Amino acid sequence: MTERVLTGDRVTGKLHLGHYVGSLQNRVILQEQYETFVLLADVQALTTHFEKPDLIRTHLREITLDYLSVGINPDRSTIFVQSMIPEIAELTVLFSMFVTVNVLRHNPTVKSESKNSGLDDMYYGFLGYPVSQAADITFCKATIVPVGEDQLPHLELTRKIVRRFNELYRPILVEPKPLVGDMPRLIGTDGNAKMSKSLGNSIALDSSTEEIAYQIKKATTDPARVHKHDPGHPDICPIYAYHRAFRPNAASEIREGCEQATMGCSACKGLIASTIEQLIQPMRERRSYYAARPRVVDDIIMTGTQRARGIAQETMKEVREAMSLNYFD
Amino acid sequence: MTERVLTGDRVTGKLHLGHYVGSLQNRVILQEQYETFVLLADVQALTTHFEKPDLIRTHLREITLDYLSVGINPDRSTIFVQSMIPEIAELTVLFSMFVTVNVLRHNPTVKSESKNSGLDDMYYGFLGYPVSQAADITFCKATIVPVGEDQLPHLELTRKIVRRFNELYRPILVEPKPLVGDMPRLIGTDGNAKMSKSLGNSIALDSSTEEIAYQIKKATTDPARVHKHDPGHPDICPIYAYHRAFRPNAASEIREGCEQATMGCSACKGLIASTIEQLIQPMRERRSYYAARPRVVDDIIMTGTQRARGIAQETMKEVREAMSLNYFD
Repeated sequence: MTERVLTGDRVTGKLHLGHYVGSLQNRVILQEQYETFVLLADVQALTTHFEKPDLIRTHLREITLDYLSVGINPDRSTIFVQSMIPEIAELTVLFSMFVTVNVLRHNPTVKSESKNSGLDDMYYGFLGYPVSQAADITFCKATIVPVGEDQLPHLELTRKIVRRFNELYRPILVEPKPLVGDMPRLIGTDGNAKMSKSLGNSIALDSSTEEIAYQIKKATTDPARVHKHDPGHPDICPIYAYHRAFRPNAASEIREGCEQATMGCSACKGLIASTIEQLIQPMRERRSYYAARPRVVDDIIMTGTQRARGIAQETMKEVREAMSLNYFD
Repeated sequence: MTERVLTGDRVTGKLHLGHYVGSLQNRVILQEQYETFVLLADVQALTTHFEKPDLIRTHLREITLDYLSVGINPDRSTIFVQSMIPEIAELTVLFSMFVTVNVLRHNPTVKSESKNSGLDDMYYGFLGYPVSQAADITFCKATIVPVGEDQLPHLELTRKIVRRFNELYRPILVEPKPLVGDMPRLIGTDGNAKMSKSLGNSIALDSSTEEIAYQIKKATTDPARVHKHDPGHPDICPIYAYHRAFRPNAASEIREGCEQATMGCSACKGLIASTIEQLIQPMRERRSYYAARPRVVDDIIMTGTQRARGIAQETMKEVREAMSLNYFD
């Protein structure tokens, strides 16, 4: 069987360097080996953003520009819109018969959310998030799903649903394998464990040279290191984390310079700013090419969605047959 | 605005006299006044019958024969299959963003079910039953929904969802009005409050003359009335309930005959059996006409479904526009 990868993002905001390190960079590699599907999850964005659908509309194109700018190649990766594949909604509804409330409320993402709002005040759609993900993965019969450790339980539920379906009816759905990345999450410029646009500690993928320099300049470093001759603790410094992420071969040199106080923070920041600039500069170019051609971008999304839809229709036909819902065939 | 009625049944078994009294008889009248949509709820049948989809397939045609036999006229009533309208699934998924778990678990139907299994062990799809009903009602912009008292909370939730949607986006969905029937529920031949095939206390709409006679003969009567000269208590007797339902003008005469012990149970049963036979006889004829023409029946369902689908597509287009999900228009 040919392997097929499913990845994607909730359409809730532009992507940043944390997304690049955590997944985008990996997708660019994966698309060379595997047929790849990239989901623009606008329906799942609605679970938290249903009051601001206009934002989703804007972000849909921005995220696609992010994809194209990092090198996701529309000839190798099918970029498609969730809400334009009705079969995903149909599968979500069907799968919701196989999963108990109990299983969903013990899903870690749902659980951590219900800590804030309580299970009762949670929206029904949010509780069903893992069911909806199962539909995303199975409609295109993805065999490989790149995930972070925290998403393994989601994928395990998808696998359970697939096994349940295949046992109950006919073995037509495919159990996806997780592909767990070994890249740790990129911390924010303020040292927060999570880089996030809303926290103001992120470096956007369309940052200008000046914006990169500014974000790096204002980044937190080891507070114990007031003067250059104070030895530093690189393990608590976001700048050192960035060196490890983007200049892995030079990381030990940076550690030495910091711990032995032979390199100042300013020079250290200058090195990483320059590396990030080198990384982002070609992204900026590719982005400006596509940003100037909105019809090409729309066409990429529409063509991808059409392709995904074709596959969805085939799968749904098989699902109807397996479940004896093909009444008039 | 033209009024439009939505009614329908879960596709879980053939219909019986209880359904006739409770809703079918009313639908035959309504279709003369209003454009009527009749939902074959096969997806909702899956919430409890997902392990037996073949049964749903059989019942789909049987229930349609029930409809045709009682006089539902396919020229006036659009009979359609839920699972063949993907837009219903799409609306279900969208509406699930507007409803909290709390609201759903306090819905009386969901609540009475969770008394048996507990909320946790309930299937996610069952918890969402009222959301799915809201999608059934709104996709075709039904203005009138005939309901029993017990279903009023379902409809109230639909109205809430519609108001929420119309406020958040654009006022395109229609708030349905309930039409509460004044006919009490028909009790079973064993005196059970509910006539139900699985309890063996029902009279099927396709009963033969002999089957009607048999079901009436074995029906429970007032146990205090051992001999004809024992005065009876008609209010605890299912046969008296049937007289009230099917021979309302003669009901006081029956009450008198029973209470004053001037009419025996056997004669009383004979009268109602004959009335039910007169009611069912033309149903049997219409049924046998259609049963001999399975292609005509399939065509009625397919034509109705196609018509409903056209309306669903229009509504979904408006929903996408209102929610700004029409990215490429």
